[in-house]
Amino acid sequence: MKLASLREGRDGVLLVVDRALDRATPVTDIAPTLQRALEDWDRVAPRLETVYVALNDGGEQGFALDSDKLAAPLPRTYQWLDGSAYLTHVERVRKARGAELPEQLLTDPLMYQGGGDTLLGPRDPICLVDDNWGLDFEAEVGVITDDVPMGVSPETAGEHIRLFVLINDISLRGLIPPELAKGFGFLQGKPSSALSPVAVTPDELEDAWDGKKVHLPLVTDLNRAFFGNPDAGEDMHFDFPTLISHAARTRSLSAGTLIGSGTVSNSDIRRGCSCLLEKRVLEAIETGKPSTPFLKSGDRVRIEMLNTKGRSIFGYIEQAVRPCPG
Amino acid sequence: MKLASLREGRDGVLLVVDRALDRATPVTDIAPTLQRALEDWDRVAPRLETVYVALNDGGEQGFALDSDKLAAPLPRTYQWLDGSAYLTHVERVRKARGAELPEQLLTDPLMYQGGGDTLLGPRDPICLVDDNWGLDFEAEVGVITDDVPMGVSPETAGEHIRLFVLINDISLRGLIPPELAKGFGFLQGKPSSALSPVAVTPDELEDAWDGKKVHLPLVTDLNRAFFGNPDAGEDMHFDFPTLISHAARTRSLSAGTLIGSGTVSNSDIRRGCSCLLEKRVLEAIETGKPSTPFLKSGDRVRIEMLNTKGRSIFGYIEQAVRPCPG
Repeated sequence: MKLASLREGRDGVLLVVDRALDRATPVTDIAPTLQRALEDWDRVAPRLETVYVALNDGGEQGFALDSDKLAAPLPRTYQWLDGSAYLTHVERVRKARGAELPEQLLTDPLMYQGGGDTLLGPRDPICLVDDNWGLDFEAEVGVITDDVPMGVSPETAGEHIRLFVLINDISLRGLIPPELAKGFGFLQGKPSSALSPVAVTPDELEDAWDGKKVHLPLVTDLNRAFFGNPDAGEDMHFDFPTLISHAARTRSLSAGTLIGSGTVSNSDIRRGCSCLLEKRVLEAIETGKPSTPFLKSGDRVRIEMLNTKGRSIFGYIEQAVRPCPG
Repeated sequence: MKLASLREGRDGVLLVVDRALDRATPVTDIAPTLQRALEDWDRVAPRLETVYVALNDGGEQGFALDSDKLAAPLPRTYQWLDGSAYLTHVERVRKARGAELPEQLLTDPLMYQGGGDTLLGPRDPICLVDDNWGLDFEAEVGVITDDVPMGVSPETAGEHIRLFVLINDISLRGLIPPELAKGFGFLQGKPSSALSPVAVTPDELEDAWDGKKVHLPLVTDLNRAFFGNPDAGEDMHFDFPTLISHAARTRSLSAGTLIGSGTVSNSDIRRGCSCLLEKRVLEAIETGKPSTPFLKSGDRVRIEMLNTKGRSIFGYIEQAVRPCPG
């Protein structure tokens, strides 16, 4: 099943979208918003699924989907937690800011609490305030959970994954080193993230989802040129159930919690990168200094994941960089 | 005006409470929840105020308020940001974990993004999992904002403060040092915080609110004995408008954002403390080792703020420590 939110009000209007991402139909009679659907998933999901089947087999016509009119599938969330499960990314990013690798890195996941009160839609511009802030993208895979009890084990945490999304975790590289030096994690360095046009149930990933990782390339283009296609199932040191269990160690997680994989990154450098900072670190290693600049006005970043038949699973995030209004 | 939420569902039922905290009346015909009221504050607040006036002058009877039946005024928030504005607290806590004071501390506020998806009610128990986790309380003052635009200045940020609350920011001292050493801030070390019975509009603070700070003692008792009564208006290095401006530097903040002052702390040690860790640090300085243990099952912490006439402004938080269920 594929779900989206039409841009309207703070939470959007819940849509069921067909598998091909061509057509959609509002389902506010079943649940007004995705948040509400997640809060009562066991009761609501079968009814949404019935609409999805009808939309796919032509029994329900719906309307032509225009992704430009979509908000994030979950336009705001009570909890956005971002892991950093690809250690290749962690190593490269820390190298860039001269930070050491923490000792417990191989056994204890890195994860931060992010701001999820205003998630961006898939085609929303990224606003640029100051070139010195070092605007960057980060392509990720994310899961959205139902209510997760405190202390859930990695063995059972996967049962709480209701939906997958793609995420563009926007980062301000120039602000992050002094911010992290204060010891309280990210705040100004991580403005609002953007989500893919649709969120999908695990079955839409077919065999690519093994209950722990998503084994498909995550394709990022910058200004319509290849930037990276690392496999999200490779080099993921902490899988999604482990990330959920980590987040829930000392408290429950409420329905609608969004947990990101962290920037997808493979050790094989032929797969490219999912953020500018990694590319700059690789350039510095190869030539002595980075040559790719951070995002500037007019740049466009595009993030998509195709299934093994070459079909888009989530639709694509495509964001243009624009000066901030006002 | 004073507002509370009766425990029901995920967001509670919005109540207007009289000034004396004796009586309350549901106002779901005006706004079903506090979150919804905050999203449309300019239209909703005058209608709530009319009910408040009637409740105070006897024109509206309401029912007897039972704070045991209250959820947090805002039972869940899309954003919980906790400052650390009292440098006395910062110095003492960092001393405890052997961390250095960051250089930019005097000009750049410390603030972390917390988890606000399941805030505790004023009488909810604090669940204790493991004595080695070092369970602690932190008494704070917090503000709840309406929609705050990105880049708001400290000069105008105060206009976005709609409500004040008291906060018990529960902390797991044993988990924090290794967590912060990873560099991504707090996650497991900060389980859900508790809020006071009611949230109040700025006018309820009368002259104690000068537009920047709340000049009243915040009284904490532990097991019915005095623990601390530092003045929230003293030694607050970064005032509330400055904290809001800091939070909004790179992104807007959506209505219902909760921003905490950090643990209230005065340099005058006769005022006691607002958390166990500070007391332990002071004991260690005086006698060579801390003597006050962290919270154990059966302990009770109580947090309240009285106005200059000795009347409770927010009601009191009183939480007992209990073993976690299951």
